[in-house]
Amino acid sequence: MAVVLLSGGMDSCVAAAIARRDNRVAFLHIRYGQRTAKRELKAFTDIADFYEADLRLVVSLDYLKEIGGSALTDERLIVPLHTEGPEVQTRGIPETYVPFRNAHLLSIAVSWGETIGATRIYIGAVEEDSSGYPDCREVFYRAFNKAVKAGTKPETRLEIVTPLIYMKKAGIVRKGIELGAPLHLTWSCYKDGEIACGKCDSCLLRLKGFKGAGAKDTLPYHQP
Amino acid sequence: MAVVLLSGGMDSCVAAAIARRDNRVAFLHIRYGQRTAKRELKAFTDIADFYEADLRLVVSLDYLKEIGGSALTDERLIVPLHTEGPEVQTRGIPETYVPFRNAHLLSIAVSWGETIGATRIYIGAVEEDSSGYPDCREVFYRAFNKAVKAGTKPETRLEIVTPLIYMKKAGIVRKGIELGAPLHLTWSCYKDGEIACGKCDSCLLRLKGFKGAGAKDTLPYHQP
Repeated sequence: MAVVLLSGGMDSCVAAAIARRDNRVAFLHIRYGQRTAKRELKAFTDIADFYEADLRLVVSLDYLKEIGGSALTDERLIVPLHTEGPEVQTRGIPETYVPFRNAHLLSIAVSWGETIGATRIYIGAVEEDSSGYPDCREVFYRAFNKAVKAGTKPETRLEIVTPLIYMKKAGIVRKGIELGAPLHLTWSCYKDGEIACGKCDSCLLRLKGFKGAGAKDTLPYHQP
Repeated sequence: MAVVLLSGGMDSCVAAAIARRDNRVAFLHIRYGQRTAKRELKAFTDIADFYEADLRLVVSLDYLKEIGGSALTDERLIVPLHTEGPEVQTRGIPETYVPFRNAHLLSIAVSWGETIGATRIYIGAVEEDSSGYPDCREVFYRAFNKAVKAGTKPETRLEIVTPLIYMKKAGIVRKGIELGAPLHLTWSCYKDGEIACGKCDSCLLRLKGFKGAGAKDTLPYHQP
């Protein structure tokens, strides 16, 4: 059995497709007060239905919103629009960073995974081209895996795997298409709604990924 | 600033006393659906008032109860009474184990600590005589510290410290008394109520600690 952290975005959907090849799957969705929670939950449900998940669990972490410090969870902050030029490279940690967020997601996956006897945890983290988040880097997952080994029962064999960690968006789209992943059911936009904005960093990255893969994104977008 | 994980038990109270010597303190209390939640929250509040905490945060993790698998969070299971003899040594992981619980507590402390600019996280974990929990061992905290370093901002300097990790209960009581820690405000019993049961593993360990320290526990106990 593999636990798959499934946000409802494209990366986690492709991670699910990879996990599904060799494992029974337990899909885990975590709401942490992000503004797109409702739309992401719908994407999760659609993808879990598509893959006929063996188990599914939805967990709410309202406290991350309480701790705050991030545009993704603080409604008073404005989602940063894409900025061309070198300032993108130099601005450092994105404003959408939730401090140490992925450690919470992984801890839940480990607790659940240990309870249900899973052996793997899949997370669609991408180091190279989607982030700047320190907890999206392979060095973090390697370190966390050691904490998992030290902090769980001796007989537990749980390993976090990050199959997309060094892929770029176009490669992820290609991989998803190759595996028949339901990319049309995923949601990437930082805004909530039925139609993606096509303007935020996440939409632009997704569209660039499809373009690079020579594929068409069938998700509806607002016209520019 | 130091974040102190303060359950309301004796160990965390002594950890708070140690933290308070050299730091401003931010007290963090986490409810995870344990049956003694209400009594522990009262202990937290009393201790935070005693130390005039600079900041305090109470967080609820209801999902740990959902994930289940432990006598501390599953009301259908019976709290194990103390058993004399070698079976105590051989039964392995206690039934009160919440899988990978401390990783959740630490992740919250790190997210909060990074947000408020703390440099240390104090946790009153004890490896030698209170547990059998894999996530109470120093090897786990060492590994988790590496994950913290890898998963937070480059400028963040947050270190988890475990001042009690190799102490025994009697030493903790002595340390608490030496530092003037309000041990009379703490709660250790696995059962809820105004008067401790005096029979569960946790009460017995506490009483043994006071006895070993040659001190009197002023908490009220049910008569045997």
